[in-house]
Amino acid sequence: MVKRYDVTGIGNAIVDVIHPANDEFLLEHKIAKGVMSLIDEHRAAQLIAGVANGKESSGGSAANTMAGLASFGAKGHFIGKVKDDRLGQSFAEDLKTNGIDFETAMAKGGPATACCVIAVTPDGQRSMSTYLGACRELSPGDIGSEAIADAEILYIEGYLWDAEASKDALRMAMANAKQAGTKIAFTLSDPFCVGRFREEFLHLMKEDVGILFANEEEIKALYEVDDFDDALQAARAWHGIAAITRSEKGCVIAADNGEVHVLDAEKVDKVIDTTGAGDQFAAGFLFGHAQKKNLRDCGRLGAIAAAEIISHYGARPENSLRALAAGAELD
Amino acid sequence: MVKRYDVTGIGNAIVDVIHPANDEFLLEHKIAKGVMSLIDEHRAAQLIAGVANGKESSGGSAANTMAGLASFGAKGHFIGKVKDDRLGQSFAEDLKTNGIDFETAMAKGGPATACCVIAVTPDGQRSMSTYLGACRELSPGDIGSEAIADAEILYIEGYLWDAEASKDALRMAMANAKQAGTKIAFTLSDPFCVGRFREEFLHLMKEDVGILFANEEEIKALYEVDDFDDALQAARAWHGIAAITRSEKGCVIAADNGEVHVLDAEKVDKVIDTTGAGDQFAAGFLFGHAQKKNLRDCGRLGAIAAAEIISHYGARPENSLRALAAGAELD
Repeated sequence: MVKRYDVTGIGNAIVDVIHPANDEFLLEHKIAKGVMSLIDEHRAAQLIAGVANGKESSGGSAANTMAGLASFGAKGHFIGKVKDDRLGQSFAEDLKTNGIDFETAMAKGGPATACCVIAVTPDGQRSMSTYLGACRELSPGDIGSEAIADAEILYIEGYLWDAEASKDALRMAMANAKQAGTKIAFTLSDPFCVGRFREEFLHLMKEDVGILFANEEEIKALYEVDDFDDALQAARAWHGIAAITRSEKGCVIAADNGEVHVLDAEKVDKVIDTTGAGDQFAAGFLFGHAQKKNLRDCGRLGAIAAAEIISHYGARPENSLRALAAGAELD
Repeated sequence: MVKRYDVTGIGNAIVDVIHPANDEFLLEHKIAKGVMSLIDEHRAAQLIAGVANGKESSGGSAANTMAGLASFGAKGHFIGKVKDDRLGQSFAEDLKTNGIDFETAMAKGGPATACCVIAVTPDGQRSMSTYLGACRELSPGDIGSEAIADAEILYIEGYLWDAEASKDALRMAMANAKQAGTKIAFTLSDPFCVGRFREEFLHLMKEDVGILFANEEEIKALYEVDDFDDALQAARAWHGIAAITRSEKGCVIAADNGEVHVLDAEKVDKVIDTTGAGDQFAAGFLFGHAQKKNLRDCGRLGAIAAAEIISHYGARPENSLRALAAGAELD
């Protein structure tokens, strides 16, 4: 039986506001340079009002992955919480334009739609101020069982673990997935995130997750080791498929049947902006997996998507990933 | 029963003559810049006579590995053919100074001891002229069964495959090793060497070899594939342990029980001269294996030795590898 969706993703629904800025702007608004800081609604409104030439685009880790999957030609469904405000409508519109189904009810009240104000200084550094807002309101009532049962893969981001209501929503989503035979894929999201929820993530992996995405720092944090090979051996002893990205060193994919692939990164003329490389790697890998490709080809598709995204500014593909996959004879 | 030797190595016994030179010297002596060319005895004598400030040092791939093993504190025995001339005596003396047993009878007549005249131009390029001479005279009569039976590991270089008599000598050595329960390790030596003897090497691996050393180009040439992961999968399907070096990408070690290790290269402040990195990787790995260390630690010892050798000119260690191993808690 062919399912309606290749992937149903659940993640933080965030609108990015990218704008050029100088160091004076950062000083004036007390923004720490080069890192991500969480801010409240008041400050978010202040910042956005102060921004000149801001460029809005839908973002969020899992939502970026869904956009990548759509670019490959996959059929996707996204679950995430926005408020029914201007940014929330813009986020929903973007998903629809990309052909991704999005039915999560917009909040009528409460916190505003999440946004991430990204100041890009002339030195190329990105200073991010993130307001999570409505994201934190995702609750079990938002999980429609149909979109999960009718997907090959359920994809979840670790970032969601920060809010209790979201956690309950994820537990329900995973229960639905297991009942319907939908595979569960999970990304560790961030080494700090792993630091906060390490035990819970390991438990999740033991009980529910079949496919794990992590970069080198995240997998080391998960297994509390300093050495990549130690982390790899721990991942190999796990029962699922671990897809570990290593930036310019490529990726290593390990499964518990002893299968290990060591794949080089795709060649890129010039690396412009590495934001979202992990999200797009996941898109390529999940696209391949939903198409029942072997692990090597799943990894190659991930590498192709990551190479596209780091070749330009922004975290969503500008070129058809489907065409790039066809060029590599992986469609 | 503890064996007398950790490793008995068989290889080409070559004396390197390194000298500073300018492009005029290369032109005058018709030396192709930046590559290795084979020369005859007459030209070798001419060249050496014309060299100013030449620095002699014992070389040859497997002999370099033996010197590395000695620096780790391992007990080694070397089999290789020199003539009883000045360079031959120098080669033998060097081995003895390093504590490596060497009993191969020196040829009384025939071709002179092998040498490799290395002109180093001010741009840092190395132009090599190799005269194989007495090396090619290695024959079954030179293989003493005792030094092979009394070693944990017999180590053989692929370069030896170029001479029929040497090949017969190697066949006898491997038969002795199998009878005595001595493990057989083999290095592919060079992608061109693999090109010449691919079928024979594959047969050797099937029948005799338990540990294979190769760099990325060599293993791709062996399995006739363009992609590293394809070569890795072929190596994993083989019955032995494959230790594959990838320059700055580190190494990958695969065994047929599904064990795979992905190890980073040791950090080096500045890469000065990569000559002999593979030889020293093999030294560290074999040292670890003879000490019954796990594959990960064998690989790390290899990486440590390779990092030492590329930090300075010349293909033999200048710092105690034993001390470096102790510093990494791998002694």
